[in-house]
Amino acid sequence: MINLYDIKDPKFLRDLSIKELKELAEEIRKFLIENVSKTGGHLSSNLGVVELTIAMHYVFQDPNDELLFDVGHQSYVHKILTGRAKDFKNLRGYGGMSGYIKRSESSYDIWESGHSSTSISAASGLNKSNPEKRQIVLIGDSSISNGVAFEGLNYLGQIKSNNSPIIILNDNKMGISKSVGALSKSLLRLRTTKFYRGFKGLLTKILPGFVVRFFHRLKRSMKGLIQRDNIFEDLGYDYYGPYYGHDIKALIRLFKRIKNNKGPVLIQLITTKGKGYKYAEEDKEGFHGVKPFDIETGLPLNNNDKKMSYSQALADFLVEKRKTNEFFVVTPAMKAGERLNKFSELYPESFIDCGIAEEHATLMCAGMALHNKRSILLMYSTFSQRSYDMFLNDIARQDLPVIVGIDRAGIVGFDGETHQGIYDVSMFLSMPNFYVLMPMDLKELIGLFNLAFEINHPVVIRYPKIDEDITKLDFNYKCELYWEYLTKGKSLCIIGYGPDIKRIAKIVDKNDLDVTVVNARSIRPMDLGILRSVFERFNKIIVFEQVVRNGGLYHNILEFKENNNFNSRVLTHSFTSNDIIPNGSLDDLYDKYGLTDEKIKEYIINNLDNN
Amino acid sequence: MINLYDIKDPKFLRDLSIKELKELAEEIRKFLIENVSKTGGHLSSNLGVVELTIAMHYVFQDPNDELLFDVGHQSYVHKILTGRAKDFKNLRGYGGMSGYIKRSESSYDIWESGHSSTSISAASGLNKSNPEKRQIVLIGDSSISNGVAFEGLNYLGQIKSNNSPIIILNDNKMGISKSVGALSKSLLRLRTTKFYRGFKGLLTKILPGFVVRFFHRLKRSMKGLIQRDNIFEDLGYDYYGPYYGHDIKALIRLFKRIKNNKGPVLIQLITTKGKGYKYAEEDKEGFHGVKPFDIETGLPLNNNDKKMSYSQALADFLVEKRKTNEFFVVTPAMKAGERLNKFSELYPESFIDCGIAEEHATLMCAGMALHNKRSILLMYSTFSQRSYDMFLNDIARQDLPVIVGIDRAGIVGFDGETHQGIYDVSMFLSMPNFYVLMPMDLKELIGLFNLAFEINHPVVIRYPKIDEDITKLDFNYKCELYWEYLTKGKSLCIIGYGPDIKRIAKIVDKNDLDVTVVNARSIRPMDLGILRSVFERFNKIIVFEQVVRNGGLYHNILEFKENNNFNSRVLTHSFTSNDIIPNGSLDDLYDKYGLTDEKIKEYIINNLDNN
Repeated sequence: MINLYDIKDPKFLRDLSIKELKELAEEIRKFLIENVSKTGGHLSSNLGVVELTIAMHYVFQDPNDELLFDVGHQSYVHKILTGRAKDFKNLRGYGGMSGYIKRSESSYDIWESGHSSTSISAASGLNKSNPEKRQIVLIGDSSISNGVAFEGLNYLGQIKSNNSPIIILNDNKMGISKSVGALSKSLLRLRTTKFYRGFKGLLTKILPGFVVRFFHRLKRSMKGLIQRDNIFEDLGYDYYGPYYGHDIKALIRLFKRIKNNKGPVLIQLITTKGKGYKYAEEDKEGFHGVKPFDIETGLPLNNNDKKMSYSQALADFLVEKRKTNEFFVVTPAMKAGERLNKFSELYPESFIDCGIAEEHATLMCAGMALHNKRSILLMYSTFSQRSYDMFLNDIARQDLPVIVGIDRAGIVGFDGETHQGIYDVSMFLSMPNFYVLMPMDLKELIGLFNLAFEINHPVVIRYPKIDEDITKLDFNYKCELYWEYLTKGKSLCIIGYGPDIKRIAKIVDKNDLDVTVVNARSIRPMDLGILRSVFERFNKIIVFEQVVRNGGLYHNILEFKENNNFNSRVLTHSFTSNDIIPNGSLDDLYDKYGLTDEKIKEYIINNLDNN
Repeated sequence: MINLYDIKDPKFLRDLSIKELKELAEEIRKFLIENVSKTGGHLSSNLGVVELTIAMHYVFQDPNDELLFDVGHQSYVHKILTGRAKDFKNLRGYGGMSGYIKRSESSYDIWESGHSSTSISAASGLNKSNPEKRQIVLIGDSSISNGVAFEGLNYLGQIKSNNSPIIILNDNKMGISKSVGALSKSLLRLRTTKFYRGFKGLLTKILPGFVVRFFHRLKRSMKGLIQRDNIFEDLGYDYYGPYYGHDIKALIRLFKRIKNNKGPVLIQLITTKGKGYKYAEEDKEGFHGVKPFDIETGLPLNNNDKKMSYSQALADFLVEKRKTNEFFVVTPAMKAGERLNKFSELYPESFIDCGIAEEHATLMCAGMALHNKRSILLMYSTFSQRSYDMFLNDIARQDLPVIVGIDRAGIVGFDGETHQGIYDVSMFLSMPNFYVLMPMDLKELIGLFNLAFEINHPVVIRYPKIDEDITKLDFNYKCELYWEYLTKGKSLCIIGYGPDIKRIAKIVDKNDLDVTVVNARSIRPMDLGILRSVFERFNKIIVFEQVVRNGGLYHNILEFKENNNFNSRVLTHSFTSNDIIPNGSLDDLYDKYGLTDEKIKEYIINNLDNN
């Protein structure tokens, strides 16, 4: 019985018998379920790679072996095996261990990502820049179907060297939601070629490695005259698979055998997402990223039935709106994240989940707009960065009326540096024609979406990952673009958008502060009437936004001030380009960045005093 | 004999015999060579698709047929056949016809792009949003190897309908430069499977279409039990090819036969880039995009041996620098554009052309930096937009010392809306850690690159697509980050960067204007010492930049002014986010945007008067 807390590095694995390794796997599984049930985090993907990760660390222990984990959310087992069990107490918390690969945590952490499909290209760069090193890349079936991964596969497939990287395809038939696309069907075909698998599996089990490799090459060289087996062999890889991904003994044998392969290798392993925890096996999407839950029942702790997320409210609205309006909902793999299950069931013909393919999804919406069909493109702020060029050239430049719903705008809790929604405002304000809007509450969310249907230009509506008290939503409510005075005071004016500005108005009210608060729900176009009036009446204006200030509302208000020769002082409460927001709970991050009610109150009072 | 100027639309094609169609092809070829030799433009790619485009317009004339041209630079034949021969006089000129697809020019123009590999995803959107329409997509072998195209192929491969799009792969074995990557090797294998091609080709020639389709399906269904033919069939496409792409009769027959195919189809056609003009056939890269040239000799008109481009100077510097320094040069398909032939020949192990794969190229550089290897990533400003997410998450966030050379910064002549280099400054200034630099001349180009090698952070050095008088370049010259006073006057201060600011200093000198000109070669970090001093001494400051002002230097100087409570007026000469720069010569565009010497002089004098 290994004490997981005693592990310093993976070297101990070699001292264990297969039986002991299996026990270790079960122990890790138990540890993961227990810990993640308390902290929340990515559960089912990690349960799926327990044996796989153990086998990787068992075989690839050479100092020149570099293990890469695509996205990195499935690296929990790797973290345990590299001496970080104790850090699971504060997994993804402020000051605690990242939920992803983090170089500063361990010399075993090679490639930081957070966004999918970058690992193969990174391995290409690592491989090219040091011929001594060999990369072993673990990547899921959804990630590998993304365009970036394809570019990496395409490059690496032509590189033959003694240290060519090994790609391990963790095929759990899932990804974040269900895998989509032709490649996933192709993988399915591979999975179901039983004869082929059986034959190859048998070979691997009973024959020495060099014989297996010889047969493998022979088979390929014969067929290679005319055709290849599958997409991976077609791209130049020695393909092994599919194999069962939970048999430690077979995995170790397999990895040992391909270790000295020359030329790029791809191994397809079939795993079960959520393996070993029944609720996770049953609800793979639900347990992809979880909040703290009760192990016995699988139900979330502290579930607050009286709260509703922006994603949920929007999803409900879309179901309702679709009854009377024709439109498409397009999303790159965010069906679960955007709560679109109901919409997709009711209107399958109007719903498109493109898989992890942000660029493709954005282009599809542009194509639809050319047929005068309205589409709602839903993605997270941080992933919208993947489509910058398509938003600019294909939607903004052509002034196509696509409605883009940008979820998880502003600070995002727990996921850390790579998942913050703080760049989209600057992105979209640099592009032509885009309306950029943000609601201050669920009511305005509906109001702005209803408004967007009447705007014949591209519209971005951004909303945060926070919950609000449920109120009865009026699905017919429509906002105006005008800004709005939420409070009227004389000493100071605060302009901002999103739930922050509503909160600020409440703080001002509650504390009877002499402050005017303006809801700038339309970040572009700005409400020049109100803006002018504010500059005429206030000596001090604070622009409050949860984004990088470069190219945001603050900069645009400075430009307005300059153009109109106003003298009021304009301060900002926002991020600089150099701010990198770490992992932590939303409360902790709000505290760090002066966004709690208490700190906002202090900030306002300080600015009143100094006025 | 058809008068090309009489063509109104492609309907006339059906009245022509095969012989007449062949004559038409030759006539179009002659027309293209003659016209492009005068105006410049994309030549060899268009010469390669003459028969192909004629056959497409011959067969796909249904009002529901939508022809898409990936990138769109190979749409000249399409433009002639849709009644635009007369507009070739001012091809790519100001107010003239675009060198790409432009919806405002013709109802036959469906999909505008300019950047590669978007057409398949666009077709997916067009197809989904109107089941009546059928898309016929023409895409080159380099474009199809890009990740975006793969995402599109992956999506479309699973869609079965009566109107599934047809993908025509124009395989000229080239792309912009030579195709690279495993897919290109895979295509090569397909090309060389002579037996297979012969058999299939024979079938197509002698048997009625339904029999061919039957055999095709039979063959697939038998093999389909275990495996598929190639990557395209693996992705769900009915694959036809490879066929010879210059035989009009065979092409028409082929297109007619696949017209009623159900499910997605991909046809691979082998064409010769530059076909029919010997200099273009011999130098396919050189004639991809050409300046006006002499038809007899193939040599550029007005070739100025005394001028040198920034790309060329940088390429020469890199060859020299590599003698004493270890580094990699990585470029996504810009080997020719960046003049890297010599470098790649001298240092093949240090040179990587990734093909059209900006995201992959950026990630490779990040990977190299993790091994403490320096890489120089060279791409055009407009294409750097494709890698926004990788620049942010994988290079900037991790503070990796990659040197990014951003070519074609600022206004770009002729290519029009989709190729302007006016967004990169805003992009990079929003990200952490990036140094953003721009040289005012070739000397500083070298100076900043030498400096960049000493900066242990990510560095962007941007440079324009203009030529300069050759001076003997000092490859050892190293700049400082400090800003520099180019002229010293008292009435006005102009701050800017790049060759514009040098030109402004000359105009000031020549006209004896009382103006201080500051070269802000480091856009970030700003030189706060000079900035402070300028604000203390001048009532009026003009920030001059050839980029969108949102999030650029102007906004950052406004922020500095605000933070330091200065009162000087700050004007800007730059673009708004809503400016969309059309095609035209650099001279014409400079005139339109107030950037000629004359207009700059006027602008300065006007600002002196109003001071």
